Amino acid sequence: MRILILGGDGYLGWPTAMYLSNRGHEVAVVDNMVKRFWEAEIGVQPLIAVRPFHLRAKRWEVLTGKRIQFYTCDIASNHRHIYNIFEQFQPDTVIHYAEQPSAPFSMIDREKCVTTQHNNVVGTLNIIFAIQHTNPDIHLIKLGTMGEYGTPNIDIEEGWLDLEHNGRKDRVLYPKKAHSFYHLSKVHDSANLEFVSRVWGSRVTDLNQGCVYGIDTDETAMHPELNTSFHYDAVFGTVINRFVIQASRNLPLTVYGGGTQTRGYLNIRDTLRCVELATLNPAERGEFRVFNQFTEQFDLNTLAENVRGAAAGLGLPASIDHIANPRIEQEEHYYNAKHSALLQLGLEPRLLTQDVLAGMLETALRHKDNVDEDKIMPNVKWKS
Amino acid sequence: MRILILGGDGYLGWPTAMYLSNRGHEVAVVDNMVKRFWEAEIGVQPLIAVRPFHLRAKRWEVLTGKRIQFYTCDIASNHRHIYNIFEQFQPDTVIHYAEQPSAPFSMIDREKCVTTQHNNVVGTLNIIFAIQHTNPDIHLIKLGTMGEYGTPNIDIEEGWLDLEHNGRKDRVLYPKKAHSFYHLSKVHDSANLEFVSRVWGSRVTDLNQGCVYGIDTDETAMHPELNTSFHYDAVFGTVINRFVIQASRNLPLTVYGGGTQTRGYLNIRDTLRCVELATLNPAERGEFRVFNQFTEQFDLNTLAENVRGAAAGLGLPASIDHIANPRIEQEEHYYNAKHSALLQLGLEPRLLTQDVLAGMLETALRHKDNVDEDKIMPNVKWKS
Repeated sequence: MRILILGGDGYLGWPTAMYLSNRGHEVAVVDNMVKRFWEAEIGVQPLIAVRPFHLRAKRWEVLTGKRIQFYTCDIASNHRHIYNIFEQFQPDTVIHYAEQPSAPFSMIDREKCVTTQHNNVVGTLNIIFAIQHTNPDIHLIKLGTMGEYGTPNIDIEEGWLDLEHNGRKDRVLYPKKAHSFYHLSKVHDSANLEFVSRVWGSRVTDLNQGCVYGIDTDETAMHPELNTSFHYDAVFGTVINRFVIQASRNLPLTVYGGGTQTRGYLNIRDTLRCVELATLNPAERGEFRVFNQFTEQFDLNTLAENVRGAAAGLGLPASIDHIANPRIEQEEHYYNAKHSALLQLGLEPRLLTQDVLAGMLETALRHKDNVDEDKIMPNVKWKS
Repeated sequence: MRILILGGDGYLGWPTAMYLSNRGHEVAVVDNMVKRFWEAEIGVQPLIAVRPFHLRAKRWEVLTGKRIQFYTCDIASNHRHIYNIFEQFQPDTVIHYAEQPSAPFSMIDREKCVTTQHNNVVGTLNIIFAIQHTNPDIHLIKLGTMGEYGTPNIDIEEGWLDLEHNGRKDRVLYPKKAHSFYHLSKVHDSANLEFVSRVWGSRVTDLNQGCVYGIDTDETAMHPELNTSFHYDAVFGTVINRFVIQASRNLPLTVYGGGTQTRGYLNIRDTLRCVELATLNPAERGEFRVFNQFTEQFDLNTLAENVRGAAAGLGLPASIDHIANPRIEQEEHYYNAKHSALLQLGLEPRLLTQDVLAGMLETALRHKDNVDEDKIMPNVKWKS
């Protein structure tokens, strides 16, 4: 298949590109490198320096004989350029990671809120129009987030809800209650995408992904120059990744608030497999298909205990600190999110075992001198 | 009260400004005049030429002794300017009409779709931040649309839905299924506004308004120079207004498709009263309050028959034509939308009587030489 990956310089985009290239697909990548600008703005950098894209692609070609084509393009501001890329590359599938990915970033101030919603919503609109313009049969796989749903007091279904009200029935988009301006940008994307599938007959898969953890994939592990952009800071780092870095530095694992907040999680290797399964089993024309993309749900306290246990096994004496929650979110809440669609397509989850955590801790220890401890504690508050 | 009206140059903004000024409120208006640019882009103009704002405000002051202050500002691009206006005027209530208001306009092409969503979503975000910046106690009244809901097979509630699912209960945002990129922009606004009421404790009233009809209000009727921006064209004109103009020109009333599409409608005078009721009865801190703002529901065939009847009473022999539906929408559908909240606050609906239609027809006849017949038939298709 011909697969175009938007946001291919990022934490998930680059490993996805190598993974699908390795499996014989023709892969091209689009990125505008703006994430590197945002990192510079807030003064953070990935754990391991990420080499320029063309050097990684060259290394990949030397190792495997496979070529990953690269286009620099800002999909939110240059629709003509993205139309040209679609016309040149003629993708069968577009995997769309090209969004500002951080909830805290979107809550910093007005400018970051607007940047997030503009970049994500207008970027996705331009992709929708590029598909209509080039080939309406292209399957769009869009990365959403479980955070779109919030923490409702009812079971979370996969995107759609069959409901009965006053004796009548309908199937409706699952009602959302997002956690941040970032999560809201993805709610807006989902609403726009459902519309074009309904009205234009577009093929759309919306992957509502849980929190991803992991430093390595099979492909990044092939060569030291193929690492991905792993963040541990309070803005771009996800929680398990941050705990692992804290443990590697003998810092306390910092749990926000009471720690009873429950969310879905998955291994970065499972992200790649989920995206592959969605690619190989495309949505139908006119279908807005939603998969909840995670493998396990945990509360923060359990996660912290698990990381502490794995760290102890490596002789690292981690402690756990509860700190004031910078976010406004429910701490005591019901959480039961369905996630059977990807399992039915063949996903075999890699669960968060002590071995998996030990592997992450070992990588973290090798690079622990790179850590900037000043960037780990949260400094963005949901309400000032 | 000190009331700031955003979009105060428009069809509803200007009559609202006069109505509230007339009732003793201190009123200021913000507009960037971009609607006049959009009209020029697609080559349409209002039925009656609308004089520059400062001349209408001067006329209003001569007639009533009351002053309506005017600020030119693009709320979507100049947040510093809108912050300054908030600081200077110190509003108690902000009434937000400053959005691109047309579904067909948003469906013209990519550029118009992006313009609509960017203008509406980012403009509203800037207002949210201006309120936080100036005075979080300001009550925001935002104009939404009944079209956000679409045509679900269940009763439409006022913004929120109490539901039971797998034996558990929750109160959720009513699930939406909007009709166009324009309607979607308002869905996005609503989601953003619910979030800030939940997280920042903002006071928000979201008025999901039906199709408005009417040429005159008590205040526009006070002087020929106080008319509002009435559109009859296929892009900015709403359906009853368009039928009235067609009848006045002895043109057939053009019903899109089968004509069984049912929607909520209200008189422009009731819009003013609804907005006044929301102003006088503000939402609480932390409340995202939604009112469905319409007084009657009709299908298109009934509306066309009503206009034909009123036209016949004035000796105008109107016929009815069914034309291919340029929109993609359900024609046979259930429709039962609740709208009791504004009635409970004291709204006394002016229904769509033959007298009301005769009054509109008489005004239309006086200005019928201004009509550009080339702009009445739809030329924007939902799917090309």
